[in-house]
Amino acid sequence: MDSKLKTLKKRLYEIKYISSASSLLHWDSEVYLPQNGVSSRAITNSLIDEICHKKLLKLDDGNILTDLVNESSNLSLEDAAMVREAFRNFDKGRKFSNSFVKRLSILSTKSHHVWIDARKKKDFSMYSKILGEMIDIQKEAVDLLGYEDHPYNALIDDYEPGMTVSKLDTIFNGLRDFLVPFIRKITDKKVSWNITMDGKFSVLKQKKLNRDILDILGYDLSSGRLDISTHPFTVEIGPHDVRVTTRYSPNDPIYALYSSIHEGGHGIYTQGVPVEYFDVGIGHGASLGVHESQSRMYENLLGRSLPFIKLLHGYILKYFPDFTKTPDDLYRIINHVTPGYIRTESDEVTYNLHIIIRYEIEKKLISGDIKVTELPEVWNSKMKEYLGVDVPSDDLGVLQDVHWSLGSFGYFPTYSIGNIYSAQIYNTMLKDIPELKEVISLDTLKSMKAWLYEHIHKYGRVYMAEDLIKNATGEGMNTSYFNSYIEEKYSKLYNLV
Amino acid sequence: MDSKLKTLKKRLYEIKYISSASSLLHWDSEVYLPQNGVSSRAITNSLIDEICHKKLLKLDDGNILTDLVNESSNLSLEDAAMVREAFRNFDKGRKFSNSFVKRLSILSTKSHHVWIDARKKKDFSMYSKILGEMIDIQKEAVDLLGYEDHPYNALIDDYEPGMTVSKLDTIFNGLRDFLVPFIRKITDKKVSWNITMDGKFSVLKQKKLNRDILDILGYDLSSGRLDISTHPFTVEIGPHDVRVTTRYSPNDPIYALYSSIHEGGHGIYTQGVPVEYFDVGIGHGASLGVHESQSRMYENLLGRSLPFIKLLHGYILKYFPDFTKTPDDLYRIINHVTPGYIRTESDEVTYNLHIIIRYEIEKKLISGDIKVTELPEVWNSKMKEYLGVDVPSDDLGVLQDVHWSLGSFGYFPTYSIGNIYSAQIYNTMLKDIPELKEVISLDTLKSMKAWLYEHIHKYGRVYMAEDLIKNATGEGMNTSYFNSYIEEKYSKLYNLV
Repeated sequence: MDSKLKTLKKRLYEIKYISSASSLLHWDSEVYLPQNGVSSRAITNSLIDEICHKKLLKLDDGNILTDLVNESSNLSLEDAAMVREAFRNFDKGRKFSNSFVKRLSILSTKSHHVWIDARKKKDFSMYSKILGEMIDIQKEAVDLLGYEDHPYNALIDDYEPGMTVSKLDTIFNGLRDFLVPFIRKITDKKVSWNITMDGKFSVLKQKKLNRDILDILGYDLSSGRLDISTHPFTVEIGPHDVRVTTRYSPNDPIYALYSSIHEGGHGIYTQGVPVEYFDVGIGHGASLGVHESQSRMYENLLGRSLPFIKLLHGYILKYFPDFTKTPDDLYRIINHVTPGYIRTESDEVTYNLHIIIRYEIEKKLISGDIKVTELPEVWNSKMKEYLGVDVPSDDLGVLQDVHWSLGSFGYFPTYSIGNIYSAQIYNTMLKDIPELKEVISLDTLKSMKAWLYEHIHKYGRVYMAEDLIKNATGEGMNTSYFNSYIEEKYSKLYNLV
Repeated sequence: MDSKLKTLKKRLYEIKYISSASSLLHWDSEVYLPQNGVSSRAITNSLIDEICHKKLLKLDDGNILTDLVNESSNLSLEDAAMVREAFRNFDKGRKFSNSFVKRLSILSTKSHHVWIDARKKKDFSMYSKILGEMIDIQKEAVDLLGYEDHPYNALIDDYEPGMTVSKLDTIFNGLRDFLVPFIRKITDKKVSWNITMDGKFSVLKQKKLNRDILDILGYDLSSGRLDISTHPFTVEIGPHDVRVTTRYSPNDPIYALYSSIHEGGHGIYTQGVPVEYFDVGIGHGASLGVHESQSRMYENLLGRSLPFIKLLHGYILKYFPDFTKTPDDLYRIINHVTPGYIRTESDEVTYNLHIIIRYEIEKKLISGDIKVTELPEVWNSKMKEYLGVDVPSDDLGVLQDVHWSLGSFGYFPTYSIGNIYSAQIYNTMLKDIPELKEVISLDTLKSMKAWLYEHIHKYGRVYMAEDLIKNATGEGMNTSYFNSYIEEKYSKLYNLV
């Protein structure tokens, strides 16, 4: 068994460090690639991906992987996790033939272009046909992957191993039934605050400010970088090379800060995982949902709390001494609730309803219970029902997200799973670090990072998400912490009775 | 033959676009890699290099490459060049066994570290032993590669195909015999100018200035980038992704500008080569010497001329309106001749003597006519003889360059070959574009780029360097143009009789 383990580790190590080049190519494409370099980049990407894919399909040569799967009860926790994850990837790799992967990739490229055009022209009908083809190929994928109970389970499992429609239905229904009336209470108050910023904020100074904030949160800039991209993201290029991005507005320092803090949360998680786990493919987070719980915890639970905003305010003043807002002003600006059309611009109260709408639709698209042509109508009526808004045009409605055009179905739920986990973990952490609710010092932030390392980060992908959360918080996924957090915070902020 | 050509092209295309990832990894290492990411980067580099090396050794599978070599007289000019270059690389690849390449690589890493330490401590004796080992392994390489007449030919040929010791001896002796007395004439004048800059020059503004200058020269920023690195360089990541770097001094705008212009010359060359040539491995310049001729032409022949400095002066004023120097001041500052210890800081008159010293030493190290322990003495006496300077310590003498520590023997001559070619090509170009000597407008720069494209750039590596130069200038390498250029320019500047 030892020699099989050794061989498997060597194979995984090679895949991991070769795909590090892919990660760099991806990062560069988003951050620094010259505009004319796009087409040659696509060739290099696909060649490196092909190399990794071929190596993935060879993971079981000599049956070492299947043998290890069968013997995994005799393995250490870490080795068993490595074997489990290696087999997951290998198994998916062999189920998708080369010709299927190529068809999917060609369709994605095409559909992405059609989507861009349709969104620009605010016309869903232009996109309807190719989206139908995308859903058909997703159904093929579902059949190739296999599933129990519900076809959509095959897709969710890819992003959030172990998660199912039946679990999500319960969770999301509960969340929706709490949020819809709660948001109505807030909007009924018809509160109107001045949420505009005054002044100009030099991007050069903002960059320094954002680096300061990442630094105090515990993101290690000597094992990472902060750059600019249109859509902020975090990428793990190597075990000590985990990069984040943000984007700046010269009119508003908050805009960049909360993206940086969010990505910083991802970055701190990834930087915290032991190198030995990276080497064998269990170095990333337990699931996308757990990863999102860390970014959202830093961004929302910590980042949008009054004690943190007081600390943040001091740093803003360091670079912008003429900044006119008080911490209380900032707290209101940062936590202002407005039901709107656009998911990515929504606040932490309305956000999950945007996700639930997508979840309910995706599920039925895959099961065939909604036709593509019905999409705008279904979308708009759910937006009205859950958020009380009338969607004026498709670009602000069903066409707003890139995900479907690229074939990412089953991904959206992980955002809300992250929100739910974030509140649940934070609630447990507060018992050990109560000062998070009172006055936040640099030491408090160090304690927070150490706590998350001890309970989440250091395990990488050793545990399945649900087990990790049970170990960390003493129970399985529980939405009540998120609901209580929202209810308590926003009842006070909006003077609800 | 068609099917063999097709197969070879496909194989070359794959190698080229995979090694594009290597180029990006290299660029990133120099420009943006976080300090803790260095060790994992080394693993990825070596894995990607290994993939390319394996593919290189498979170029001849089915004997297609050797067959094509034998049939190459029936091939088009481009295909014959492709076959020639593919075979050169394949042949070298198979001559060096894996274990030899690994030994060389391990020795380079080790010797590089010893060199850094020895240079810091200014003590050649610390470095002497490992440099001896490096020379021994270079001799092994020479034997593996094979050579005619002189063992050093095997090493030169790697960088400058077709170049030999007997040709270089004639060329470099002529150059040395002109330069040594000419420099003495200059130093005998004991001219002393104020060459210090006044004021502070914001790096942000300098960046814009450098981009402007690259743009007017014809370097395409939408197919490239300008970033910062300790040692400026140019890298071809893809056919439309050719990046250059520079470095800035807040006290001196000239410092960055001439590095940018030099690298811009490399960049314009590489950007000008047709994509089809890139795809099959003949997209780079004809040789390192020819490449250097383009960068040095932009930097020196054009860049350090009075008409260009007048244009440049206007751009400096655009960003630094308080700049106090006149174009004539700048011309003197930029063309100030001072025999010094350090090659990279030397002016265009003394530069070649630094190279000739290295050439004369390398040649004898490889042939065994100089012992490593004699190096400091030989170095210092040549510096005294050619440049009239007394080297005060090894860090300013024999320890100054990184090249030997990394095993680059045979590379230095390409710098002077570049200088000689640059003057020869410029002399021919002046007949078509005489305004280069009078008043340089943006149109003049466009004409220059177009001329170089037509006579040099568009051929990529189709012609061997010497043939390319013959086609472009009507004769083989001829140092008289360089000598006349130097003599005319500096006799005037220094009022020599």
